[in-house]
Amino acid sequence: MPGNTWGQAFRVTTFGESHGEALGAIIDGCPPGIELTAAMIQRHLDRRKPGGRFTTPRQEDDQIEILSGVFEGVTTGTPIGLLIRNQDARSQDYAKIRDRFRPGHADYTYQHKHGIRDYRGGGRSSARETAMRVAAGAIAQQFLLQQGVSIRSAVEQIGDVKAQQSDWQQIDDNPFFFLDAAAVPEVEALLRTIKKAGDSIGAAIRFEVAGLPVGLGEPVFDRLDADVAKALMSINAVKAVEIGDGFAVANQRGSEHRDEMTPSGFLSNHSGGVLGGISSGQVLRGRLALKPTSSIGISGQTINLQGEPTEIVTKGRHDPCVGIRAVAIVDAMLALTLMDHWLRHRGQNADVDCQTPQI
Amino acid sequence: MPGNTWGQAFRVTTFGESHGEALGAIIDGCPPGIELTAAMIQRHLDRRKPGGRFTTPRQEDDQIEILSGVFEGVTTGTPIGLLIRNQDARSQDYAKIRDRFRPGHADYTYQHKHGIRDYRGGGRSSARETAMRVAAGAIAQQFLLQQGVSIRSAVEQIGDVKAQQSDWQQIDDNPFFFLDAAAVPEVEALLRTIKKAGDSIGAAIRFEVAGLPVGLGEPVFDRLDADVAKALMSINAVKAVEIGDGFAVANQRGSEHRDEMTPSGFLSNHSGGVLGGISSGQVLRGRLALKPTSSIGISGQTINLQGEPTEIVTKGRHDPCVGIRAVAIVDAMLALTLMDHWLRHRGQNADVDCQTPQI
Amino acid sequence: MPGNTWGQAFRVTTFGESHGEALGAIIDGCPPGIELTAAMIQRHLDRRKPGGRFTTPRQEDDQIEILSGVFEGVTTGTPIGLLIRNQDARSQDYAKIRDRFRPGHADYTYQHKHGIRDYRGGGRSSARETAMRVAAGAIAQQFLLQQGVSIRSAVEQIGDVKAQQSDWQQIDDNPFFFLDAAAVPEVEALLRTIKKAGDSIGAAIRFEVAGLPVGLGEPVFDRLDADVAKALMSINAVKAVEIGDGFAVANQRGSEHRDEMTPSGFLSNHSGGVLGGISSGQVLRGRLALKPTSSIGISGQTINLQGEPTEIVTKGRHDPCVGIRAVAIVDAMLALTLMDHWLRHRGQNADVDCQTPQI
Amino acid sequence: MPGNTWGQAFRVTTFGESHGEALGAIIDGCPPGIELTAAMIQRHLDRRKPGGRFTTPRQEDDQIEILSGVFEGVTTGTPIGLLIRNQDARSQDYAKIRDRFRPGHADYTYQHKHGIRDYRGGGRSSARETAMRVAAGAIAQQFLLQQGVSIRSAVEQIGDVKAQQSDWQQIDDNPFFFLDAAAVPEVEALLRTIKKAGDSIGAAIRFEVAGLPVGLGEPVFDRLDADVAKALMSINAVKAVEIGDGFAVANQRGSEHRDEMTPSGFLSNHSGGVLGGISSGQVLRGRLALKPTSSIGISGQTINLQGEPTEIVTKGRHDPCVGIRAVAIVDAMLALTLMDHWLRHRGQNADVDCQTPQI
Repeated sequence: MPGNTWGQAFRVTTFGESHGEALGAIIDGCPPGIELTAAMIQRHLDRRKPGGRFTTPRQEDDQIEILSGVFEGVTTGTPIGLLIRNQDARSQDYAKIRDRFRPGHADYTYQHKHGIRDYRGGGRSSARETAMRVAAGAIAQQFLLQQGVSIRSAVEQIGDVKAQQSDWQQIDDNPFFFLDAAAVPEVEALLRTIKKAGDSIGAAIRFEVAGLPVGLGEPVFDRLDADVAKALMSINAVKAVEIGDGFAVANQRGSEHRDEMTPSGFLSNHSGGVLGGISSGQVLRGRLALKPTSSIGISGQTINLQGEPTEIVTKGRHDPCVGIRAVAIVDAMLALTLMDHWLRHRGQNADVDCQTPQI
Repeated sequence: MPGNTWGQAFRVTTFGESHGEALGAIIDGCPPGIELTAAMIQRHLDRRKPGGRFTTPRQEDDQIEILSGVFEGVTTGTPIGLLIRNQDARSQDYAKIRDRFRPGHADYTYQHKHGIRDYRGGGRSSARETAMRVAAGAIAQQFLLQQGVSIRSAVEQIGDVKAQQSDWQQIDDNPFFFLDAAAVPEVEALLRTIKKAGDSIGAAIRFEVAGLPVGLGEPVFDRLDADVAKALMSINAVKAVEIGDGFAVANQRGSEHRDEMTPSGFLSNHSGGVLGGISSGQVLRGRLALKPTSSIGISGQTINLQGEPTEIVTKGRHDPCVGIRAVAIVDAMLALTLMDHWLRHRGQNADVDCQTPQI
Repeated sequence: MPGNTWGQAFRVTTFGESHGEALGAIIDGCPPGIELTAAMIQRHLDRRKPGGRFTTPRQEDDQIEILSGVFEGVTTGTPIGLLIRNQDARSQDYAKIRDRFRPGHADYTYQHKHGIRDYRGGGRSSARETAMRVAAGAIAQQFLLQQGVSIRSAVEQIGDVKAQQSDWQQIDDNPFFFLDAAAVPEVEALLRTIKKAGDSIGAAIRFEVAGLPVGLGEPVFDRLDADVAKALMSINAVKAVEIGDGFAVANQRGSEHRDEMTPSGFLSNHSGGVLGGISSGQVLRGRLALKPTSSIGISGQTINLQGEPTEIVTKGRHDPCVGIRAVAIVDAMLALTLMDHWLRHRGQNADVDCQTPQI
Repeated sequence: MPGNTWGQAFRVTTFGESHGEALGAIIDGCPPGIELTAAMIQRHLDRRKPGGRFTTPRQEDDQIEILSGVFEGVTTGTPIGLLIRNQDARSQDYAKIRDRFRPGHADYTYQHKHGIRDYRGGGRSSARETAMRVAAGAIAQQFLLQQGVSIRSAVEQIGDVKAQQSDWQQIDDNPFFFLDAAAVPEVEALLRTIKKAGDSIGAAIRFEVAGLPVGLGEPVFDRLDADVAKALMSINAVKAVEIGDGFAVANQRGSEHRDEMTPSGFLSNHSGGVLGGISSGQVLRGRLALKPTSSIGISGQTINLQGEPTEIVTKGRHDPCVGIRAVAIVDAMLALTLMDHWLRHRGQNADVDCQTPQI
């Protein structure tokens, strides 16, 4: 069984290599009647683009095309085809890595899994693949917003710089989607140092989803928190995921952790909005961590296709911190996961009023 | 789409409520020719049983029956039916929670998802459900052992007691599957205090899988690490999962994190055995955290079915630390995930030698 | 990917060999709030039992047990476990076919697919497996009846005896579920002759489903008629399926076949109730044919496990016409398919009123 | 759950409306190392094109593009993206059917399923969608040919003209893929009459697959014959499917139908190459029937969006017999089904030698 499809009721299947002809996706199962234009999707794509939303010269890049499933500006319930052409597909020279495995990259594992790989820019394993996740996620966010669900995420740590406060309203105003405006200069200084050293740095992201109903999630395996963990861990470079209090629970007592209930609501949210794998109606919250990019200017030991020892240095542009651009991808994966569970839930429970008694 | 099935090529579907007639599972897709007896499965079940493997009087409990798919001691390739009868199904009185939601439990979310719930012992949301995961996992471990793959996990933290060293060979000799033999007395003291207070405590578990080939995992969504994260997060009470260095990567540099390669192997294992979502042939390693059980003897505020305020105390036996019995479940979920990916991989890549050049 | 699961939203997974310990099934995805008792299921099982509903001494056979998913007489939305013990599991001697392949049976293909087989009574390939389809189908029929959907099927041909008229109301009053009461004596005479000759005979079945809404079916692959065709062809011995006018369309003109519409309804039903793979609101109707059972008393040539020539005669009870007992199985497979599509449709189209303008 | 994906191990997902921007598909799960070029796919597409392979001016139409998954002429194991632009997307005027339902078409059912439809040329329900099935099927046929499996199908009946003999070698030499060369003039005469009358006619197709191993098919639901039936019934206009002797079995005796075995092979092939849902190694053979196209020049009664009575005549080019172009689609759906089962089988049974003792 291949692995390029996300979701069961709201299914997203993607294709495309970093330096191939194009990236594309098919969204199957989208409900009919949702307003959708290329511009709506483009806004989300621009948030994950190299350099973020400030570098106008790049605005031409990653132009999304809607090829089907939308008629007169509205979804029809048939599959939605999406396409982005790779403009600079042939512009770079990757001959050096044709027969060498870059440490920390998937060159080695792809080669041995399939016996062949498109080595150009990492081929299918490149983070460029996530553009299609963001495009599909934009459709899901459009649906969820209509249901009163809002998703947000922000960078809360880069290296040893941690957010001391949460200024959610300003994360789109700083180039790092950083949660603490006061720490932005520190972040800039750190990244300048890292870049000068030709090195890279890791990061941590926090997310919150408000407005969820009670009842999303399909125990015992397709729990909402389990699928969120998979969704986030499937993003390039992610190595850890927490829901609610996360690892801190190892040193909590039951009397401290359990969220007591009153007619006016829960008294706390240690659980992070999930009980028994089903959304509780509280804010769904958690954290994830991303490793530093492995494409750095510092030489490293590796082997070649023949298994012989060699060295490699990754030339060319690269993000010193992949965590920054991941914010838009985290929003997208959360949206895809929640919308899929939304459709799954209502198919089985259409006759159930999952809202009362609401607290 | 319901959620009680795990895996795609090696599919496990389970049923059963804590106080219903029985627990059961169907394993579909098991390769033919694997030796299998009820006794082989029973050994694994006994590791997760209340009180662990020391309380002989319990040896009669949770007797597993193989109902199909095995002929003359060998799997036939047809579905394997498993059954465990609930002996004490009617022995306890849960009338008190019939119309009250226990804080921290899934009572509230199940009720609102389906509009009805089997409240006895938590019904389907009870950790008793995991007995069938362990039974199915025993079959997967039997297959993986034949392939040279070995799985192990142990408790590394309970409350503020953390393992200072790793004594893997003795974890089955202490009642807590604790990784550090020297800390066992501390753990016992802590649990005695917790129990006396009628409270509970959280825990953290470490896992390691050795002997994996290069190539397991299906990018871009069904990455091996993503499915491992889902598998572990789907276990009752789990709130956090790490692969490799986990959250520590947020403060690592690329030059430090990337695992360099030489003809004699990788020079480090920060990645935890996965690159680009595909197994690298290194040890697959990570951590997870489990919340303290919510069934405690300390009264807490809650609401009833009518949304009115009330209080509740959970009477009767309960584990002060659910993390201990989770060790067998972690092994099982890892085995189910790895075997599923093993069959998926070879279906597509049967003609590929995914082993050379091996490092 | 294994093949023992039917459906996507309403999923039925079965296990069990003809002479193993038991037959069982898990129904996952059943909506909550449906009244369900073992007696409701038993009624359907009794229709497919050897000898049908007249032979009281058999009433004890095939007793179904509901093991989970039902609480206080109502489904809870959690998986429903079903079980039937095989009483005469060890009562028969199949040593003769241990190393011989019965012509027309699956002995040869199962042996070569898996390299091993449970030869007793055909093991997993026995029609006994369909008992679980009927049990699961009973639950789906319970749901569909509440929605105003009614399913019926009857034998319309056995050998050269064809129904000349349709007396639907009496099919349960004759032992062959035969559609034409006047032809029953003919059928009895034919079957007596066949039985005396130690031979068997084929049959054809007609089905009709009334009360369906417009909109069931998921183009382009999971069309309602495509899934009905698969559902029926998956029944043991079925070799042909027709929807609507079936093969007769090869010699029809467009002006004759297309069903014209008026405000008071369609003027004909050549399509059989499906347009573009989606239910039209008309009666879903079609036909299927079943081969004669291959278990006959007449010696036949075959080979053994070593590929050497030999002969075989199938001793013991066997139905001279498997088509008769298939009626209950056809009803069940139609119910499973329609209920699955019902839940799938409403998950995506919950906000659509698929009924207006109704004709 | 949406329905635009075929297969489980070899998965094909398609998108595209008849008059939308483009048609596309993603093939996920294709084994690596298979030679593939756009020209290889184009050859198959040309067989289903309007007018068949004789009208050179059309050679520019339906140009297929491979967008990913192929590197240096060989598949890499990553998803294959396929695209065909719709050149004459805006060239036709369908305003007339905007608010009217064409009898026999899916206009009525799509409108009521989703509450909205792309009416232009039938939108998603148009047979134009099958171009992507043929493109994907070309890849599967490339794989199967390497395994020694050959697929062929031909028209054996159009209206009352039936093939009296089988001249397989010449079917690509007559414009109707007709099985009996001698009957071609009759067919031409019939179609001329039909066309002049502005009417259309049905057809029947025969198929044969040679070179299959023993063992393909996953009982009990995903039988090979059940999936073949679904594959063929999912093709636009198909109303009936037979495997082996099909409906004729209703009047066969067991002693006549069962295919006896000898060391030199089966003595007959009434089963059509499938026993118990698993391929027997014999030729997989069967038949299907297609209804006459509903787009005809003869006025018919219908209703409009408001449910009011009206009339409609379908203007413009249309095939008088859709069965002719269906031959390439039948080959494609058989290839997709067989390749999917091939990969599924070897994933579970990689260690089984499913070939011995071969007969």
